[in-house]
Amino acid sequence: MKTAQNLLAGADLDRLCIDTIRTLSIDAVQKANSGHPGLPMGAAAMAYVLWTRHLRGDPADPAWPDRDRFVLSAGHGSMLLYSLLFLTGYGLTLDDLEHFRQWGSRTPGHPERGLTPGVEVTTGPLGQGFGNAVGMAMAERWLAATFNRAGQPIVDHRTYVIASDGDLMEGVAAEAASLAGDLRLGRLIVLYDANRVTLSATTDVTFSEDVGARFAAYGWQVQEIDGMDVDAVDAALTAAEGDEARPSLIVARTHIGFGSPHKQDTFEAHGEPLGKDEVRATKRAYGWPEDAQFYVPPEAQREFDKVGARGAERHAAWLHLLRDYRAAEPELAAAFERALRGELPAHWGDGLPVFTPADGDMATRDAGARVMAVLAESVPNLVGGSADLDPSTRTMLKGKGDFQPADLPERTPPTQGLAGGVRGYAGRNIHFGIREHGMAAILTGMAHHGGVLPFGATFLTFSDYMRPSIRLAALSEAHVVYVWTHDSIALGEDGPTHQPVEQIASLRAMPNLLLLRPADANETVEAWRIAVRHRGGPVGLVLTRQKIPVLDRSTVAAADGVARGAYVLADASEGVPDLILIATGSEVSLALEAHRRLVAEGVHSRVVSMPSWELFRAQPAEYRGAVLPPAVRARVSVEAASPFGWERWVGLDGAIMGVDHFGASAPGPVVMAKYGFTVENIVATAKQVLARVAR
Amino acid sequence: MKTAQNLLAGADLDRLCIDTIRTLSIDAVQKANSGHPGLPMGAAAMAYVLWTRHLRGDPADPAWPDRDRFVLSAGHGSMLLYSLLFLTGYGLTLDDLEHFRQWGSRTPGHPERGLTPGVEVTTGPLGQGFGNAVGMAMAERWLAATFNRAGQPIVDHRTYVIASDGDLMEGVAAEAASLAGDLRLGRLIVLYDANRVTLSATTDVTFSEDVGARFAAYGWQVQEIDGMDVDAVDAALTAAEGDEARPSLIVARTHIGFGSPHKQDTFEAHGEPLGKDEVRATKRAYGWPEDAQFYVPPEAQREFDKVGARGAERHAAWLHLLRDYRAAEPELAAAFERALRGELPAHWGDGLPVFTPADGDMATRDAGARVMAVLAESVPNLVGGSADLDPSTRTMLKGKGDFQPADLPERTPPTQGLAGGVRGYAGRNIHFGIREHGMAAILTGMAHHGGVLPFGATFLTFSDYMRPSIRLAALSEAHVVYVWTHDSIALGEDGPTHQPVEQIASLRAMPNLLLLRPADANETVEAWRIAVRHRGGPVGLVLTRQKIPVLDRSTVAAADGVARGAYVLADASEGVPDLILIATGSEVSLALEAHRRLVAEGVHSRVVSMPSWELFRAQPAEYRGAVLPPAVRARVSVEAASPFGWERWVGLDGAIMGVDHFGASAPGPVVMAKYGFTVENIVATAKQVLARVAR
Repeated sequence: MKTAQNLLAGADLDRLCIDTIRTLSIDAVQKANSGHPGLPMGAAAMAYVLWTRHLRGDPADPAWPDRDRFVLSAGHGSMLLYSLLFLTGYGLTLDDLEHFRQWGSRTPGHPERGLTPGVEVTTGPLGQGFGNAVGMAMAERWLAATFNRAGQPIVDHRTYVIASDGDLMEGVAAEAASLAGDLRLGRLIVLYDANRVTLSATTDVTFSEDVGARFAAYGWQVQEIDGMDVDAVDAALTAAEGDEARPSLIVARTHIGFGSPHKQDTFEAHGEPLGKDEVRATKRAYGWPEDAQFYVPPEAQREFDKVGARGAERHAAWLHLLRDYRAAEPELAAAFERALRGELPAHWGDGLPVFTPADGDMATRDAGARVMAVLAESVPNLVGGSADLDPSTRTMLKGKGDFQPADLPERTPPTQGLAGGVRGYAGRNIHFGIREHGMAAILTGMAHHGGVLPFGATFLTFSDYMRPSIRLAALSEAHVVYVWTHDSIALGEDGPTHQPVEQIASLRAMPNLLLLRPADANETVEAWRIAVRHRGGPVGLVLTRQKIPVLDRSTVAAADGVARGAYVLADASEGVPDLILIATGSEVSLALEAHRRLVAEGVHSRVVSMPSWELFRAQPAEYRGAVLPPAVRARVSVEAASPFGWERWVGLDGAIMGVDHFGASAPGPVVMAKYGFTVENIVATAKQVLARVAR
Repeated sequence: MKTAQNLLAGADLDRLCIDTIRTLSIDAVQKANSGHPGLPMGAAAMAYVLWTRHLRGDPADPAWPDRDRFVLSAGHGSMLLYSLLFLTGYGLTLDDLEHFRQWGSRTPGHPERGLTPGVEVTTGPLGQGFGNAVGMAMAERWLAATFNRAGQPIVDHRTYVIASDGDLMEGVAAEAASLAGDLRLGRLIVLYDANRVTLSATTDVTFSEDVGARFAAYGWQVQEIDGMDVDAVDAALTAAEGDEARPSLIVARTHIGFGSPHKQDTFEAHGEPLGKDEVRATKRAYGWPEDAQFYVPPEAQREFDKVGARGAERHAAWLHLLRDYRAAEPELAAAFERALRGELPAHWGDGLPVFTPADGDMATRDAGARVMAVLAESVPNLVGGSADLDPSTRTMLKGKGDFQPADLPERTPPTQGLAGGVRGYAGRNIHFGIREHGMAAILTGMAHHGGVLPFGATFLTFSDYMRPSIRLAALSEAHVVYVWTHDSIALGEDGPTHQPVEQIASLRAMPNLLLLRPADANETVEAWRIAVRHRGGPVGLVLTRQKIPVLDRSTVAAADGVARGAYVLADASEGVPDLILIATGSEVSLALEAHRRLVAEGVHSRVVSMPSWELFRAQPAEYRGAVLPPAVRARVSVEAASPFGWERWVGLDGAIMGVDHFGASAPGPVVMAKYGFTVENIVATAKQVLARVAR
């Protein structure tokens, strides 16, 4: 490391640029009086080398499809990213930096996709960005294998990550790293900012493992370098780029809060402003003008401007390639560009199945499988898999191949659990392994990479494992489809560890997540139709393990009512009913039968199927009032899940038939009956409510 | 491996015993027509060696405190455990095995603590048992360091685990394993049932990493053996027990579904009964009587009976040791036995702080710190820590030492983030690292080990990372205290990635979890008091980052109302009010001020503080009706969190002031005001509701 020099005496240009990143970050954190200066100060050198010499992007078009992706997994170091976006011309202004962490600014505390041009994913909760990056690298490989043709590498980019100690302590990153190694994602390169200091302590206290050896065990290329040394970083990145058979981890030793006379290498540099005096002292140590705020030396700016110039050239070259590709492969090019725009092929929904009671009772997971068999053909960029539960979730895209590295002589040929069809990265079935959290983070990364519509499946109970990543998908509006089967205590013998109870309520509580629990096979078709079309966030499909009736749509309302979230399935008569039964999923057929018995006894009953609270809430008040007339207070909800939240629909006067404790191990029909989900019990409850409300 | 022999021709006794375990498991799964036969068949040999030659337990007293702990992390192989518990005399009967997975049986689909004698923890969701086991090993080390005296090793046992491929793919196990290595938990021994087959596939498809090398990188002793070879298992366990400086992973290669002519080594053996014909064929291959069901050869039973005999001897020897210990160390022995019984010291609650407005505004996290400083003295087995957030969660037990291996010359002396006080395993502050999920699984294991009252802290948002383990703590009724700070959008600048919104609702939806969100410093004292005393499940404390007023209890009701979940804080007048404002946490002081303004305007207003829904729901109907008179429908709830669920208290006619979208990065007071949490807005909303209800 060079010692600090007098800025005005012609400091080394690299150092000048690096210190510009550092001081911008320091000043923004100090002005906000909030934030994390330490990481930008320590990681500025390697970020500078990456952004100016390796990362391929066009600041004038942050959405250029063949750009390299950059993920700041250590999102608390957001000022590092904002400084780079500002300096390299992505459209951030000095004013944006000066409003770091302020209301309405484009520079929030942690990077948020959609808010700031050039921010690829929303990060901050540790480990998530790492998982997203694995998903981006997977999407790149799939698109390349699917769309590239000889001499026309229309998809040809890398995913770079800066990750912190904290990222690599998190299990989600461990899961994603193991899968990345297994999949030999050679286009993924992680700079590990090994500063050995976390928020509360040095990592010696709790993180003494050999991270490099661990990643080697996953099958990664591992290099250890001085992360403050520009040339070492450059060489390591070049070596990483040269190994396309393995993902790369560059263990870069850095100094948190570098240059701060009193805080370097301490946890005090991690998450608080340096303080005014220490800011001055640090700038003095850099040879920086002490009193300058948000200062960008012109020489440094000229150097950063080259990023834009080079990016524009590369982008232009790619557009040239794309023109040739369009000419040579017009159909493929059309499909490629449609996928990148996130559009669906025309007629994608044609041929989706229509079921009748003659099909026999059918689990909605099986109806889902029938839908997916059609979508496998009509939505060619539907790509995904399960966390080792295909035989149970029924989510394999048969004949569409397995997403696997091709031609690996040292790998035992897999003999089981495979989809058949094309091998290699063009396969559309991803084997996530028993890594639900990693799966969810990867799906978000795939969605935000663009070009694919990702799905992931597991049991509904295990959505808990995915939850931190679901939240970020919802926050960043990723279009992902989650298929959650085994949706209630009715799954039976596996018992309470596997029986979801509170999951449906807790997922409904999450903003931006659209949840659908279809009542039968035809509602499942409609739910999938909505899931494929939806924009603005992820969609969760909640499906049964057990067989349930296919409702006879000649006697009840059509299943396309799913699109409105809730609809009147059957009514005793015209006009306002005396009683409303509201049910979802497998309990709708029970409620319907109870309704029929009540009607036979002369009750003016109505039964409402409510597959999606979110869609229903988005309807106009008139529609909601027509389905659930405000004056009708005799209401009974029936859902084999936590009653939590159902007062929204039944109020203080109605009754909620739910499960307010954990499940039990026994055959599904036994558990359902013991927990009160019988037609008789619904009828009896309805009568009680009617009597109570009448009083 | 020996080939199958004719049972009646005097088979090898070990093999006879092992095949007894296998056939019991096969028969139970077949009879239930549900379950996982493959793991018990493949892991029976190593489980047999462990249980008959190494594991120290007394079947006559499954609660003997100094027993070795056994965790079947791969809970789907529950019949392996039930077979062993039956054969070694823990009180399970053949009838229990015949009712595997049936309603009301003691043999549920996955092992459940509390239901079956000898089951230490509830497992099934993969990776969790592994994490629990790390917690058990930590509790053992803490108790040993705290209570053992020279020549009196009153705490002196090991924790053994059988884990599967799936367990070791899960991030929660990775986090716990890393920490176990860091902490050098030499008393932890994991038999890894490396059968290379998961539910849907061979592990080649997705799990090609070198697990042994990974664990070596964590600092574990690693051995690789033939897990079907009795002598090899025995030798490996002996070697593992001989290394007290490192936890041990024994990578045991096994064959799933061993002996099944058509299903061995296939995923079909994983999760389904073998089928009647295959059961017969398998028994034939074992040299077993084909038609016998649940057959236990007398020679095998005699061998298994020795476990009980040896256990009784060891238990008796320990009781002898305990007698001597009581004589030599009466006070210590009393404390030890009280801790094991889960009892609190007399007067533990004395000296808890009482706050007044004169103390100034105070964040409830800081009030919590003041409480913990007292509890650190009065509850000597309160042990825990945070996921690298001590400086923010304020949960360090100052002066109570750091739970760390003592005397490790090769470790850099930690210089930061430490509590001070005793070093070594007697330290009471655990540095979990940035491993929230691992922390939560560990806490459950510590609680179920017994002898300690564990706590764990992080930001409320990151409770999402902990969720699968919280659920199992709730299901298995573990007494754990979670301290979740930074409890709302009011945390400010860190922005939406860190601002909880839906977490409170989703935690309230979970059965058996007691959640408390105190309104001020004095409610925080009461909340902690409840948390320490509570039994039957975990407790979550939801605390503010920001300062809030200390309510003047001379003008409002006393804070001990917290124990009833909700209480009338202030009333306009005697009798039934016209309007009820219900608030929790930091919003109570806003609601109180709004109430005062409304009263000044002549509204008969009431303000209710509702720190805990669960406690309030458990009150008699009269009390609930007195706090929230059913006839009063003009109700407004105020909570800076998802509105989800609040209709329970405000019905269809009231108003919910909440946050039904994600947060934003800006100073906390700005975010709160922008999101409508102001006194003016509460007053205005209340008037609207009053007007609406009056109509």
